[in-house]
Amino acid sequence: MGKKRNKISVIGSGFTGATTALMIAQKELGDVVLVDIPNMEDPTKGKALDMLEASPVQGFDANIIGTANYEETKDSDLVIITAGIARKPGMSRDDLVNTNAKIMKSVTQEVVRYSPHTTIVVLTNPVDAMTYTVYKESGFPKERVIGQSGVLDTARFRTFVAQELNVSVKDVTGFVLGGHGDDMVPLIRYSYAGGIPLENLISKDRLDEIVQRTRTGGGEIVNLLGNGSAYYAPAASLTVMAEAILKDQRRILPSIAYLEGEYGYKDIYLGVPTILGGNGIEEIIELDLTEEEKAALDKSADSVKNVLNILQ
Amino acid sequence: MGKKRNKISVIGSGFTGATTALMIAQKELGDVVLVDIPNMEDPTKGKALDMLEASPVQGFDANIIGTANYEETKDSDLVIITAGIARKPGMSRDDLVNTNAKIMKSVTQEVVRYSPHTTIVVLTNPVDAMTYTVYKESGFPKERVIGQSGVLDTARFRTFVAQELNVSVKDVTGFVLGGHGDDMVPLIRYSYAGGIPLENLISKDRLDEIVQRTRTGGGEIVNLLGNGSAYYAPAASLTVMAEAILKDQRRILPSIAYLEGEYGYKDIYLGVPTILGGNGIEEIIELDLTEEEKAALDKSADSVKNVLNILQ
Amino acid sequence: MGKKRNKISVIGSGFTGATTALMIAQKELGDVVLVDIPNMEDPTKGKALDMLEASPVQGFDANIIGTANYEETKDSDLVIITAGIARKPGMSRDDLVNTNAKIMKSVTQEVVRYSPHTTIVVLTNPVDAMTYTVYKESGFPKERVIGQSGVLDTARFRTFVAQELNVSVKDVTGFVLGGHGDDMVPLIRYSYAGGIPLENLISKDRLDEIVQRTRTGGGEIVNLLGNGSAYYAPAASLTVMAEAILKDQRRILPSIAYLEGEYGYKDIYLGVPTILGGNGIEEIIELDLTEEEKAALDKSADSVKNVLNILQ
Amino acid sequence: MGKKRNKISVIGSGFTGATTALMIAQKELGDVVLVDIPNMEDPTKGKALDMLEASPVQGFDANIIGTANYEETKDSDLVIITAGIARKPGMSRDDLVNTNAKIMKSVTQEVVRYSPHTTIVVLTNPVDAMTYTVYKESGFPKERVIGQSGVLDTARFRTFVAQELNVSVKDVTGFVLGGHGDDMVPLIRYSYAGGIPLENLISKDRLDEIVQRTRTGGGEIVNLLGNGSAYYAPAASLTVMAEAILKDQRRILPSIAYLEGEYGYKDIYLGVPTILGGNGIEEIIELDLTEEEKAALDKSADSVKNVLNILQ
Repeated sequence: MGKKRNKISVIGSGFTGATTALMIAQKELGDVVLVDIPNMEDPTKGKALDMLEASPVQGFDANIIGTANYEETKDSDLVIITAGIARKPGMSRDDLVNTNAKIMKSVTQEVVRYSPHTTIVVLTNPVDAMTYTVYKESGFPKERVIGQSGVLDTARFRTFVAQELNVSVKDVTGFVLGGHGDDMVPLIRYSYAGGIPLENLISKDRLDEIVQRTRTGGGEIVNLLGNGSAYYAPAASLTVMAEAILKDQRRILPSIAYLEGEYGYKDIYLGVPTILGGNGIEEIIELDLTEEEKAALDKSADSVKNVLNILQ
Repeated sequence: MGKKRNKISVIGSGFTGATTALMIAQKELGDVVLVDIPNMEDPTKGKALDMLEASPVQGFDANIIGTANYEETKDSDLVIITAGIARKPGMSRDDLVNTNAKIMKSVTQEVVRYSPHTTIVVLTNPVDAMTYTVYKESGFPKERVIGQSGVLDTARFRTFVAQELNVSVKDVTGFVLGGHGDDMVPLIRYSYAGGIPLENLISKDRLDEIVQRTRTGGGEIVNLLGNGSAYYAPAASLTVMAEAILKDQRRILPSIAYLEGEYGYKDIYLGVPTILGGNGIEEIIELDLTEEEKAALDKSADSVKNVLNILQ
Repeated sequence: MGKKRNKISVIGSGFTGATTALMIAQKELGDVVLVDIPNMEDPTKGKALDMLEASPVQGFDANIIGTANYEETKDSDLVIITAGIARKPGMSRDDLVNTNAKIMKSVTQEVVRYSPHTTIVVLTNPVDAMTYTVYKESGFPKERVIGQSGVLDTARFRTFVAQELNVSVKDVTGFVLGGHGDDMVPLIRYSYAGGIPLENLISKDRLDEIVQRTRTGGGEIVNLLGNGSAYYAPAASLTVMAEAILKDQRRILPSIAYLEGEYGYKDIYLGVPTILGGNGIEEIIELDLTEEEKAALDKSADSVKNVLNILQ
Repeated sequence: MGKKRNKISVIGSGFTGATTALMIAQKELGDVVLVDIPNMEDPTKGKALDMLEASPVQGFDANIIGTANYEETKDSDLVIITAGIARKPGMSRDDLVNTNAKIMKSVTQEVVRYSPHTTIVVLTNPVDAMTYTVYKESGFPKERVIGQSGVLDTARFRTFVAQELNVSVKDVTGFVLGGHGDDMVPLIRYSYAGGIPLENLISKDRLDEIVQRTRTGGGEIVNLLGNGSAYYAPAASLTVMAEAILKDQRRILPSIAYLEGEYGYKDIYLGVPTILGGNGIEEIIELDLTEEEKAALDKSADSVKNVLNILQ
C-alpha cells in the first residue's frame, strides 16, 4: 500500500548512460540501476558510487547502483538502453548495424525477463532500426518501446538559434520529423523564438546553415572531442523523456514511434511528434505536410528501411 | 548599471572540470569558461558545446565555452582550478607535487592577469600544498584562495552513514578537520543523523569502518574505475562552494584555509570549518579539540608541511 | 500498468491549505484536490484555478482543483487536513477543542470513505489531540495518521539561530520533542550550526531567548498579522512531510506519532523523532533523555492528555 | 569586491505582493524587502517573518523583511510595484485611476530617492496607465520602467489550452499584444502546442471561447473568490520577469513598454513583445500585423489613451 520510489534502469554505463543516470537522480525521478557487461562491472559500480556520493551535496535522494546482473533491474518502471558500440574506422555500416542489433536483442531479453511491464526508451544508433529491433524482440505493445532522436536534434537547433538571436534558450523551439542527424526533416515553419516564426527573424541563408549544422551536430562534437561522441545533450534528452513518462506529464515531444499507417508508413519506427505520458507514447500527432516535406520524410523513411534490410 | 551574469572559469577540462562546469550551469550560477591547454582546446570546446546543447532541454540559461585562451576568463567572478596530473605508476610523490606546483603557478599567473579581483577555489592534489602554491603565486588576500577537500570527504561519509542507517542523505551530517583522505581528521562527535549523534546510532566498530572507508574513499573509486578517479562528487563539492560564494550564502562548510595562528598553526593551508560567503572565507571557526583530536590534526599538519617542503 | 501521478488532497482551503497546495504543485509531487465546505466551494475553486494559471509560468505540471465534493478525493495517495476553526476572542478552549474535533470526525469519515488506503497528515490545532481524533475515527494503522508540529517549530528555531549567527539556514538544525508551541521540549544539545553544538556558539541567555521566541513563534505572527495566523512556514512544513512520504525518502523528521510505550507513554499522540517514508511513520526513534528533559516531556504529555480529556 | 546578493523591493504587501516575495525568495533571486504603508507595517512584518521561517524547510537562503520605511529599499536591484487599491462597488473608474496614480507617484518618489539606478516593474491596475505614471514620475530611461500584463494573460491562455488538449502546460505557448484583459489582442497564429499552430488543433469556435475566457480571466477569479482578486498567477508572472532581468536571461516575454514609434504609437505604454534582460527592456520586437490585428491594437491603444486622459 505504501509509496515506493520509481526504479529506472539504464543499460550501458558509457558516458551517455552514466550522465543519464546522474540527471535522473538529480531530478529525484527514482532509484537508478546502471547496467553494463560483466567485464565493465567494476567501472560501472565506481561511477554509480561516485554519483551517489554527490547526492548529499546536490541534495537528492536516489539510490544509484552499478551492476552486471540484470536481476537488479527487476520491476523497473522505465528502462533506457544506451548500450552498443560506436562505429570504428574500417568498420562497415552493416557490421555496426548487425553488432548493435545483436546487443539490442540480448539486452531486450534480459530486460523483458525481469520487467515484463516496463517501458523502454532506446538511444543506441542507428536508433530507428535499433528501436525497431527492441520492439520486435520485446513483444511489447508499440506504445511502450520508444526511440530518442528528435529531442536531441531540436535541442541542438534551439541552441544554435538562441545563439544567433542572442536570446534565452527557454524561448526558442524547434520541430523535426524523420530520422536522426542527416536524415532529419526540420519543419522550420513550426520553429519559433518567443512564438515568432524563425523565418521572420533569421534570413533563409542563415537558417539553412543552422539546419545544416544541426544535421551534422553529432559529427561536430565527435570531431571536436577527437575520441568519443556527445553525451551531455543526449543524456538530457533521455532524461526529459523519462520525466514525461514517469510523471505522466503528457509532454508533446518528438519520439521515434512505431507507425501503422500514420504519415502513410507501416511497420517502421520513425521520428514523429508524440504525446509522452504515463503509458509511453499516448498519441502520435499527424500533421499535414507540404509536398517538399513529404518527399524529405519519404527519403528519411527509405533510409530507415535500408538499415532494417541489413538486419536478418 | 544593468545586471550581468556571473562569470565562472573552470581551469582543467578533465572529467571533474567538465562536470563542475555542467553543475554550475545547471544551477544558473553564471556563464562558464572551461579552460585547458592548447592541445586540449578542441576537446574542451566539444565538451562545452555538448553541455550548451543540453541547456534547452534542462532549462538553464548559461553560456558555456571551451578555450585555451585565458583572455576569455577576463573578469571572472570565480575561478576553480582542477588542472593537474594524476599520479602515474612509477612516479614519485615528489615528482607529482613539483609537476602540479608548476602547473598551479602558470595557471595562477594567467588567472590573476585577467581577473585580479576574483576568488579562487583549488581542487588539484595534493590540495593543501597546491592551494598554498596558488595563494603565494597570486598575491591575493588569504580569504580569496580556498581549497576543497572537506566537502567531498563529508559527502562520502554522509553517503556511507545514510546507507548504514537506511535514511535520507539530507538528514546526515559529517565533520572533518585537517588534510584530505588519509590525513582527514573526522570529528565523529560532531556528526549526526537527524541531529542525533552517530555514536548513539551506530556501533563504534561500524563507525570506525565507515571512517576508514571515507579516508580511502577516493582510492575506492580509483580501484573500481580502473582508469581514472572520482569526478561526480568532487564536482558537486566544488559547485556547492561556488554557490555559497556567488550567492553570498554564508554557508558553514569545511574549507582548506590559510591559517595565521588558528588552531595553533601558521603559514599553512589546512582543512577547517569556515563560513563561505561573498568574500570567500569570511570566517574560520575555531573549536576546542580533545587531546586526541589535536594530535591527529598535528599529524595532518605535519603531513601538509612535508609536502610543502618538497616544493622549492 | 502505466505510471500515474500521485493525488494529494488538502482539506481546508484557508491560507495554510491553499499555500500547501501551491507548494506541493510547485514540487510536482502530484495533482492536488483542495477541499472545503460547500459554502466555500467557489473561493476554493478560485484559488485552485489561480494556482493552476501560475503553472505555465512556474513550469510545473500538476492539476489543481477546488471542490466541496469528497468524491473528487477518491484514491488519494496522501491527505492533508488543515480544516478547522481558529480560537476566537471569548471562545473557551474546550469549545475550540470540541468544535475542531467534530470537524476532524466528519472530515475523516469522508476521507476514509473515498481513500481507505491513504496516509493522513494533520495540522489542525490543538494538533496532538486532533491527530488522535483522526486516528480513532479513521481506524487506520497508526503509521498512516501523522501530526505536524515539530517541523514548524524547528523551522522557526533554525531561522532565529541563523539570524543570530548570520549564517545560512541550510546549516542550522534544531530538535524538539513533545507538544506544539508552549509545550514544546527543545533539545538544545541536539541542535547545531554547521554541526557545532549551539551551546558552543551562542550564550545560554541568548539561547533561552531564542527558545522562548520559538515557543511563542505562532503567537508572534498572530500578533503581527492582527488578523489570522501563520501559513507560509506551516505550509512548507506540511510539504516537506508530504514529500518524504510520497517519494519514500525516509527523512528523519519530528512527527506527532501514536505512542505505544515509546518514551514511556501509551495511547497518546506526541511529538517524537521519526523516520518518514513511503509507509508513513516507518520508525519512531527513541532517545535517552536527561531527567530534566523527561520531566518537560511529561508535562507536555500531561498537557496533551488534558486536551484529550475535554473530548468525549 | 565581494559578491553581494541582489536586493528586490516589493511595494505593496497584499496577496500579490506577498506571494511575489515568496516566489522570488524560493528562487534565491536575492533578498526581499516587502514594503507597505505605516498602518500596515505590522502585518507586513508578519508575512515577511512567516516566509522567512519557511526558508529552512524549503531550503532557500534569502532574507525577507517587512517594513514601512523606504530607507530599507536603498540600492535595490529591482523594484516591483503592486501597491494600489482595487475598484470598489460604487467607485467610478476615474476615481480608481486617479487614486492609484497618486499612489504610483508617491511610491515612485520614495523608490527613486533610495534606488536611483534600479529597474521598476509595475503591476498596479490599470497597468498601462500606471506604468506610464511611474515612468514620468521616475525620470528613468524607458527601458527601466516596465509593466506586467502579457505574461499573465498568456499564462491563463496556456492553462486553458493545455486543459483543452490534455497536454503539459510546458508545451503550450500564447501570444498577446496590447492592453490587459478586455483590451488584450491575442495573436492566435503565434500560439502553439508542441510547436503546432493551435488553429490546426482546436476548432475556431473553441479557440474563440478560450480567448474570451482569457480576456475575462481576472474577472473569473474575482467572481469565484467573492472577495479579492487573483494573486498566484500574477505573482508568478512578476517573478519570471524579475528572474529574466536579474539573471540577464534575455527572455522573449510580453511587456508593457514605452513606445516611441514602434507599431506606429508614440508616448504610450502598451503591451508588446520584448527581450527582457539585465538592462530591463533590451529590445522591442516589431511584428507585421494583419489589418484586423492592427485595428484591434489601435482600439487597445485608444483605450489606454482614454485612461491616460483621466490623469492630470
